[in-house]
Amino acid sequence: MNRQQLIEQIRLKKSYLCVGLDTDAEKIPAHLGRNAKGILDFNKAIIEATLPYCVSYKINTAFYEAMGARGWELMQQTLEFIPSTHLVIADAKRGDIGNTTGMYAKAFFDKSSSGLSFDAITAAPYMGKDSLEPFFAFENKWVIVLALTSNAGSADFEQQTTGGKKLYELVLQEFTKIGTPENLMFVVGATKAELFTEIRKYAPEHFLLVPGVGAQGGDLEKVAQYGMNSDVGLLVNASRSILYAGSGTDFATHAANEAKTLQQQMEKTLNL
Amino acid sequence: MNRQQLIEQIRLKKSYLCVGLDTDAEKIPAHLGRNAKGILDFNKAIIEATLPYCVSYKINTAFYEAMGARGWELMQQTLEFIPSTHLVIADAKRGDIGNTTGMYAKAFFDKSSSGLSFDAITAAPYMGKDSLEPFFAFENKWVIVLALTSNAGSADFEQQTTGGKKLYELVLQEFTKIGTPENLMFVVGATKAELFTEIRKYAPEHFLLVPGVGAQGGDLEKVAQYGMNSDVGLLVNASRSILYAGSGTDFATHAANEAKTLQQQMEKTLNL
Repeated sequence: MNRQQLIEQIRLKKSYLCVGLDTDAEKIPAHLGRNAKGILDFNKAIIEATLPYCVSYKINTAFYEAMGARGWELMQQTLEFIPSTHLVIADAKRGDIGNTTGMYAKAFFDKSSSGLSFDAITAAPYMGKDSLEPFFAFENKWVIVLALTSNAGSADFEQQTTGGKKLYELVLQEFTKIGTPENLMFVVGATKAELFTEIRKYAPEHFLLVPGVGAQGGDLEKVAQYGMNSDVGLLVNASRSILYAGSGTDFATHAANEAKTLQQQMEKTLNL
Repeated sequence: MNRQQLIEQIRLKKSYLCVGLDTDAEKIPAHLGRNAKGILDFNKAIIEATLPYCVSYKINTAFYEAMGARGWELMQQTLEFIPSTHLVIADAKRGDIGNTTGMYAKAFFDKSSSGLSFDAITAAPYMGKDSLEPFFAFENKWVIVLALTSNAGSADFEQQTTGGKKLYELVLQEFTKIGTPENLMFVVGATKAELFTEIRKYAPEHFLLVPGVGAQGGDLEKVAQYGMNSDVGLLVNASRSILYAGSGTDFATHAANEAKTLQQQMEKTLNL
């Protein structure tokens, strides 16, 4: 999915919601069964229930890797439930030297190699620009580079000052040299909404993937106030607050209601 | 495998060699078949040929993830060829917020969950100390945190100065607060051997995993001169130079010879 198609979907749905499929067998409704089939049925129901209210799904690969080879099959099967109208993100936080990152690109972008074809992958910037370059070689695919995250540990390195700016600002500065608003986004946590103004100086046009609204305590209105640009430029993720909104047989209805509530809050922040 | 057992193996074999299983179907000898069975036969032969000369194997997960679910099965099958005398490293470069890293720990450390039980995992430090904490909760398992890598892009962030020290020095300083020489190692590239003296000020007792000898041009003697401590404290990795030493039916003999040459070079640097 390219940038124009993403923006069109946001305008159509009046939503910039990304639903995070951090599916944990221990937390899904008991009647589904705490096994691979239960997870697959859960994901299918969540996707069908939330499709009208979101523009993107984010698969947290760790939750599937924890099940080994079977988990990778579940990722592949889950992707098949998601229509091409929705941007599909592998939240995988990969990054390594060039020839290895080329292999990760095959894993997440090249269906003929791995069976998986995501639209986007999250990536860790620590090893520098050349470490993520192979991801940028794929047309209509996106790299979403970690900038400022919402955990307390972001103070350890991300928020340290280097050369007059914060490390996450240096990350923004450096990666906008090799990526464009057509193939590069950044992860910015919702818990630090007032910092979006500074972040927009480095990445005025880029989309930002914003976790941390909901369970992690971020404020949607502030994120929109400080972070939105003329193309909206935001994908706000919610995972647990939607997935586990209900625990009975009507869990999908609760998930839909929660997604709809977020969509309505987002609609209020949009000037479309 | 714990620290004492690792040191004993190093003394026994007179080697601190780690063989990297970055197996690429496009590069293995053609007669094996460029498919899953070919890769498995290749890995088995390489492991059997190199066992006497090394103390560790490192599986570069990207090369297996590129094959999707089948690749994860290959990782699992490959682990079964490696005896418990050898430290087995998942070179996976993971790292995320705490509950997600807990899932990665299940994926790579908890056989009952994923089918995989590595001794160690490489991890990316960008998100801070709390992002890797769940890895440290497993007994007799190791976290190998990226510090200074051998790629040119290490200049972008790792070698930038923050608070009077390089970012990779800050990473060493911070992670030695939560990890011990019993459960924490660092990745330090061989191409910057003279920097090992500084690195040892931050991590005098910790093992260092050193890629970049061989194909990447690093110098084993200098690494030993500047990096070795009284417990050796080094695992030096070679991948392509061993795996692809030969391309005919006698590839395993060539791999053994290459591993033996490295072992002999290492023996000369040891005062056991």
